Amino acid sequence: MYFRRGLNLLYQGLFTPVGKTTTQPLCASLGRGLVLSAQRRTPELSSFVTRTNTCGELCSSHLGQEVTLCGWIQYRRQNTFLVLRDFHGLVQVIIPQDESAASVRKILCEAPVESVVQVSGTVISRPPGQENPKMPTGEIEIKVKTAELLNSCKKLPFEIKDFVKKTESLRLQYRYLDLRSFRMQHNLRLRSQMVMNMREYLCNLHGFVDIETPTLFKKTPGGAKEFVVPSREPGKFYSLPQSPQQFKQLLMVGGLDRYFQVARCYRDEGSRPDRQPEFTQIDIEMSFVDQTGVQSLIEGLLQHSWPRDKDPLVVPFPSMTFAEALSTYGTDKPDTRFGMKIIDISDVFRNTKIGILQDVLNKSQGTIKAICIPEGTKYLKRKDIETIRKFAAEQFNQEVLPVFLKTNSNWNFPVAKSIVEEQTLELIRLLETQEDVILLTAGEHTKTCSLLGKLRLECADLLEARGMVLRDPALFSFLWVVDFPLFLPKEESPGELESAHHPFTAPHPSDIHLLYTAPEKVRSQHYDLVLNGSEIGGGSIRIHNAELQHYILATILKEDVKMLSHLLQALDCGAPPHGGIALGLDRLICLITGAASIRDVIAFPKSFRGHDLMSNAPDHIPAEDLKSYHIQVSRPTDSAAAKKDSLNHSPQPEC
Amino acid sequence: MYFRRGLNLLYQGLFTPVGKTTTQPLCASLGRGLVLSAQRRTPELSSFVTRTNTCGELCSSHLGQEVTLCGWIQYRRQNTFLVLRDFHGLVQVIIPQDESAASVRKILCEAPVESVVQVSGTVISRPPGQENPKMPTGEIEIKVKTAELLNSCKKLPFEIKDFVKKTESLRLQYRYLDLRSFRMQHNLRLRSQMVMNMREYLCNLHGFVDIETPTLFKKTPGGAKEFVVPSREPGKFYSLPQSPQQFKQLLMVGGLDRYFQVARCYRDEGSRPDRQPEFTQIDIEMSFVDQTGVQSLIEGLLQHSWPRDKDPLVVPFPSMTFAEALSTYGTDKPDTRFGMKIIDISDVFRNTKIGILQDVLNKSQGTIKAICIPEGTKYLKRKDIETIRKFAAEQFNQEVLPVFLKTNSNWNFPVAKSIVEEQTLELIRLLETQEDVILLTAGEHTKTCSLLGKLRLECADLLEARGMVLRDPALFSFLWVVDFPLFLPKEESPGELESAHHPFTAPHPSDIHLLYTAPEKVRSQHYDLVLNGSEIGGGSIRIHNAELQHYILATILKEDVKMLSHLLQALDCGAPPHGGIALGLDRLICLITGAASIRDVIAFPKSFRGHDLMSNAPDHIPAEDLKSYHIQVSRPTDSAAAKKDSLNHSPQPEC
Repeated sequence: MYFRRGLNLLYQGLFTPVGKTTTQPLCASLGRGLVLSAQRRTPELSSFVTRTNTCGELCSSHLGQEVTLCGWIQYRRQNTFLVLRDFHGLVQVIIPQDESAASVRKILCEAPVESVVQVSGTVISRPPGQENPKMPTGEIEIKVKTAELLNSCKKLPFEIKDFVKKTESLRLQYRYLDLRSFRMQHNLRLRSQMVMNMREYLCNLHGFVDIETPTLFKKTPGGAKEFVVPSREPGKFYSLPQSPQQFKQLLMVGGLDRYFQVARCYRDEGSRPDRQPEFTQIDIEMSFVDQTGVQSLIEGLLQHSWPRDKDPLVVPFPSMTFAEALSTYGTDKPDTRFGMKIIDISDVFRNTKIGILQDVLNKSQGTIKAICIPEGTKYLKRKDIETIRKFAAEQFNQEVLPVFLKTNSNWNFPVAKSIVEEQTLELIRLLETQEDVILLTAGEHTKTCSLLGKLRLECADLLEARGMVLRDPALFSFLWVVDFPLFLPKEESPGELESAHHPFTAPHPSDIHLLYTAPEKVRSQHYDLVLNGSEIGGGSIRIHNAELQHYILATILKEDVKMLSHLLQALDCGAPPHGGIALGLDRLICLITGAASIRDVIAFPKSFRGHDLMSNAPDHIPAEDLKSYHIQVSRPTDSAAAKKDSLNHSPQPEC
Repeated sequence: MYFRRGLNLLYQGLFTPVGKTTTQPLCASLGRGLVLSAQRRTPELSSFVTRTNTCGELCSSHLGQEVTLCGWIQYRRQNTFLVLRDFHGLVQVIIPQDESAASVRKILCEAPVESVVQVSGTVISRPPGQENPKMPTGEIEIKVKTAELLNSCKKLPFEIKDFVKKTESLRLQYRYLDLRSFRMQHNLRLRSQMVMNMREYLCNLHGFVDIETPTLFKKTPGGAKEFVVPSREPGKFYSLPQSPQQFKQLLMVGGLDRYFQVARCYRDEGSRPDRQPEFTQIDIEMSFVDQTGVQSLIEGLLQHSWPRDKDPLVVPFPSMTFAEALSTYGTDKPDTRFGMKIIDISDVFRNTKIGILQDVLNKSQGTIKAICIPEGTKYLKRKDIETIRKFAAEQFNQEVLPVFLKTNSNWNFPVAKSIVEEQTLELIRLLETQEDVILLTAGEHTKTCSLLGKLRLECADLLEARGMVLRDPALFSFLWVVDFPLFLPKEESPGELESAHHPFTAPHPSDIHLLYTAPEKVRSQHYDLVLNGSEIGGGSIRIHNAELQHYILATILKEDVKMLSHLLQALDCGAPPHGGIALGLDRLICLITGAASIRDVIAFPKSFRGHDLMSNAPDHIPAEDLKSYHIQVSRPTDSAAAKKDSLNHSPQPEC
C-alpha cells in the first residue's frame, strides 16, 4: 500500500520525534535552530477551514472530543471501517451499522477510494487488543455521527496502489496524484521549511534585504543558453537570464549592502538529464566582504536551516584548492565521503623496465598515478577491470594497469606481471595495504588525474553495488574548493582565453600582476561549495574597479564591451567592493532528501526533454498569436534540422 | 541635499522610534506582531564584513570605541570633516590635521564625493555646542586613525544633488544611483520586511507550504496577454503564465492542503502606464475553505505584516456586494475613505416638469441619481462644472446638471433653474446640507452609476487640489467586494457570455439553478480586496466538480475543453473543495509607502513601454540565435504594423 506506507513514514519520521507520540508537525520538527525564540510556535493547521483537526494529529489526548475531519478515503474494509487520509496522516473511521445512520453508512460505503469526504464524530479508544502501535493514530478511532461526500473520485487513470511502480513519465503526467504520495509531500514540505529557515537567517538575523530582480532582461554577452522572449517591437527580444548576476552587482552599487533572493533562473540546454529549463537558486550578494566572509555566512546559513532530524553540521567546512582537488580526486567537485585518493607513484618507477612507463616519465609533464581499490580482489571481477581499461582507452586514450599486491590474484594481466617485487613492496609500503587492487596509469598530470577521478567514482559505485559499504548515506560531506584559474583556454581555439566562471570574477590578489604578463596563470577569487561530490553552489568576489573590468572584458576576453556599458559605468560611480554566491536549491534539497532526481523535489518539473507531460507544454499556438510579436515559424528544411526534429519527436520514453 | 535629507528621514522615520535615539534597525521597527517570541532579535548588520559598525547606528553609547566603517563620501567641508554614508545613516568623520596623518588626510581630502572609503578610528563626543540634534548620530563624530580608498567615484553622469529633479527616465537609466536614495532604500526594505512577515504568518503560524510553480507553461485558453517563449521544437512555444492559477488548483488536488507562493507573473499588455510586464503576487490556495475563511486569513495576514509605524489595522474589513458598490460608488473598487456617495433621487423628481428627466423616468431602467460635492460652491469654479458636463457628454453621452442649493450661487446654468423650490428643499432634506453642489444625472442604472463614480473621483481630486482635506493620507481603507456576476456579456458579441474573472470561479450556491436557465444572473463566489479605491487582491472559491467545470467551459463559455483536459481529469480524481486569493504585491507596497508609481517599489522596473532603460532591453539579437528556436523575424510590411513600429520608436520620453 503505497500511500499507507508513505504516510506512516511521513508521520513517524518527520511529524513525530522518534519514540514519542506528540503531535508536533513537520514545520516544527524541521525548524532547527529556533530562530527567534527558545520555543517556536506550532502552526495552526486547521485555522480558517471547516475541519477541527487534521487526521494525522489525533491521539489519546483527544479522546472524547467532537471532531470534524476532511480527507480522502484511503481504503475501506468490510464496510465496517475506513481509513481517512489527509496531508498530516491517517485515521481510522468506524462506519456506523445501526439503522438510524443509514444515510451516513451509504455515503461511506459507496464512495470510491480516493473520494473526498467530511466526517464529524467522537474520538474514542480502540477496543482493547485492536490498537495499532505502528500507526501514529493507532490508539484511537472515530465514531462517526455525520458524513458528507465532498467529491467523488470517478476516474482514477490506474489502480492507485500500483502507482509507485509506474514509470516516471506516468507520474509526471498525473502529477496531481503523485503529489499525494509520501515522497512528494515530504520533499516539498521539507523544501518549504528549509527555505523559510534560510530566510529567517538572512533577513531576521543578518539584515539581508529580499529583492526581486527582473527575468525579462537583455541578452548577456556569450549567453548562448538563454531563452528568448519576443517583444511587440519587431526584431527585439527579451532574454530570460541564467542568474541575476548583473542585478545583484548593481544592487551593491546602489548601496543595498546585503541582498538575497530565492531566484528563478532559466537555462536552455536542450535535452539534458537531471537538468531543468527553469531552476531556483538562493542568490546572495554582500558589500565590503571577502571570501572568508561569504563562506562563514553560507556555513551559518546551512547550519541554521539544516533539518533537525539529521546530524548537525560541523563548521567551518574543510577547504581545498582547485589544484589539490584535481591532483587528489581528479575533479573540481570531490566526493570526500570516502578515500581512494589519487597518489603519485612516479618515484616507485624511476628505474622501471616497463617501456610505456619509462616513456611517460621521460616527458616533462609525465607522471605515474594510481588509485587503490579497497578489497578490490574481493569485490571486483576480471570483467570489471577489462571494462575500466576499455573506458580509459576509449575516453582518455590512456592505458590503465591493474596491480595486484598479492601475486596469486593477478588474473594474468600481462603488464601487471612486469612489475617487479621491489616495486610491489614499495607500493605496499606506500599504501599500507595488501588486499587491494591498484589501478595505475601514466601520462600528463591533468589528464591522468581526470581519468583516475572518474575511475574512482566508477569503482565506488561498483563496490557498493557488490555490497561494500563505502559511503555513509547519513553523511553530508561539505567542501569548499578555492583558487580556481580565472581563465581557461577556449576549447575551440586554445590560443584564446575564456572565463573559467564569469567575466565579473575578481582575480586573486597575489596574482594581479600576472594579468598583464601571463593571464592563464591567474587564480581567481571564485569558490565552489561541494556536497557529497555535487557542486551545490558557487560564487566569487567580484571586480569592483571599472578599469580592471574593462581590461579583462576587452583585452583578455575580446568581448563587446558595449553590451555591458551600463555595468562598467556603474563600477565608475562608486561601486563598493562586493562578492556573493548562489546555491542551487533544487540540487541541495535533492541531496538532503536523498531523492533519485531533482524532479522529485520540484512540484511540476519538466521531463528531460523540457516537456510538461501533464499539460503538454510547449505546444503549438495559433499563427495569429505570433503576429503581434513579429515572428514566424521557420520550418526546418535542411537535413540537420530535420534530423533534430525527428529526434525530438522520437517515441522514446521521456524519463 | 538629496541624500542627506533622504537618509536623515530614513534613519528618523524608520530606524529610530520617534523621540528616541536607540539603534533599532528597520527590520525590527517594521516587524509588527513579533511573530515567534515576545522579543525579536535585532539583525546583526555588520556580521561577516570588514566594518565593525554601520555609520547610522553610532551614538553616545559607542563613545570611546574603536570602529571601522565603510561607506560613501556624502560631502566634505573645508577639508576638516566629511560625512560618511551607508544604508543605515550618516556619520561625521574628522579629517586629521597633524603632519603624521598626511596620508590619511590626502585620501579623505582628494577622493571625489560618492567615492567609497573605509575608515578606522575612535568614536568621540562632538565639542560642546556642536552637537546636531537633527542628526541621529549628531552627538558623536569619528576621530580617524586610518583610511583606505576602496573605490574612487570617477564619472557621475550628472551632479548628484540635482538627481531628484531629473526625469524618471533618467532615474531608470541610472537606477544604481537612484537606489542610493532614501526613497528607494526605504521602499525596498519595507517591501522585503513585509513579505518576510507575511511568510512568517503563512508558514510558521498557519502551516502553509511555499511551493514554486513553473513559469514556462502552456498557453491558457483565452490568454491573449501571455508572452510566448519559443522552444527548440519547431512551432512549439511555452507561455509565461499570468498567474499560477492552474498549478495552485492542481496542488490542492494533490493534497498539499495549504499553498502559498510569492509568485512572479507575466502579462503582455503592450504600453500601459503603471503596469509592468512582470509583476509579483502573494498567491494563496487552501482546501476545505469557504469565502469567509479566505477573508479571515487575509485580514490576519495583513494585520500581522502591517508596518509598525502605521495605525494597526482593524479587522474584519467591511464587505459590500458588487451591486451595492456599483450603486453607491459607481465602481467595483470604491474608495471608501470619503463620502460623496451616489444617491438615488428619482422620487424627488417623479412630478418634474423638466423634459429630459421626465423622459428617463418613463423608461423601465430609468433613474435619476446624484452626488453631492461638499462645499462645492466654495471650491469649484464654473469652468470645472463645464469640464464635468463635457466629460459626461463625451464619454457617457449623458447630461449632468449641477444643482445649487443656495440660489445665489447657481452660476446661471439654465436647466438648474428649472428645479423648483420644492425639489430643492427635498434635496436639502435628503442630503442634510446647503453649502454643497449637487451633480445630477438621469439615465440607465449601471451607466449612470459608472458616470457618477468617475465624477466622484474627479471632483475629489479637484477639491484636494484646491486645498480641501478630503482623504486622510494616514488612512488605509480596506473593503471586500463580493457577489460579483459570474459571467458578463462579451463586449464584441453581447449575446455570448464570458467569465467575469476566470472560468474556474465557483457559482454562488444560491444561484446554481440559474446556470441552466439564466446564466447571466448567476453570482459568483469571487471576492475582491480593495484598498483606498485600488483593487489589491482578488480570489474565489473554485469549481471542484468536473461535470460543472465542463458544463461552464463547453456549454456556457464555448471554450475548447481539450486545452484544459488535464484540469478536468484532475477534478475527477478526488479534488477537494478549495479556494484562494492573490494579492498584488507591487500595488499594495505602493499604496503603503505612498509611492507615486509601482516603479518606485520595484528595484529594476520597466518603463511603461516595457523597456529596461538601463540595459536597453528588449534588444536586437543576432539572427543565428533565433535559428535553434525555428523562428524568424517578420518585418512589418502592412501599413498598420509600420505605424505601430513608428509609434514604438517615437522620441517621446518613456516616463
